[in-house]
Amino acid sequence: MQKQENPTYLKAITIRDPSDIHTIKEDIKKEMILILRVTPLAQKDVDKLRKVVEELYTIAKNSNADIARLGEERIIVTPPGVKIWKPDYDLK
Amino acid sequence: MQKQENPTYLKAITIRDPSDIHTIKEDIKKEMILILRVTPLAQKDVDKLRKVVEELYTIAKNSNADIARLGEERIIVTPPGVKIWKPDYDLK
Repeated sequence: MQKQENPTYLKAITIRDPSDIHTIKEDIKKEMILILRVTPLAQKDVDKLRKVVEELYTIAKNSNADIARLGEERIIVTPPGVKIWKPDYDLK
Repeated sequence: MQKQENPTYLKAITIRDPSDIHTIKEDIKKEMILILRVTPLAQKDVDKLRKVVEELYTIAKNSNADIARLGEERIIVTPPGVKIWKPDYDLK
């Protein structure tokens, strides 16, 4: 659970390279809310994108984080204290 | 501040009509994190979009909520306990 005295941060960033996953992992550990734009990587290398997305889902699962797609361009990852509202699993 | 025992919800929805602002206002009061897609309204009526965005900024200000643009398509609104990370005010 997040600390009451500190705000939770929402960070919107772009994944340009698979190596960006390290920083993202740290941010997930810090219980940040992440909105990750994946389109530049998708345009560069679809296989790398697939691996990054799989890794994100694994990290999220292991961190009790919630994860969902936001349209075609982005992925949302939220810490244990924040749940993604999925009325019909369509976030588009 | 949000209650420790209840999760904060992140809700991603599309604004299709200015009347949607009523529900959004309620959600901001409930301290939800909102990701609002504005493109359908932008395509329909740019003036209505401008008014809706102005209203959102006013509601956010009055609710101590944080607000920021996310690319061309979306607007993020966060409750007082969640701050939007703006390293250079460029969330694109």
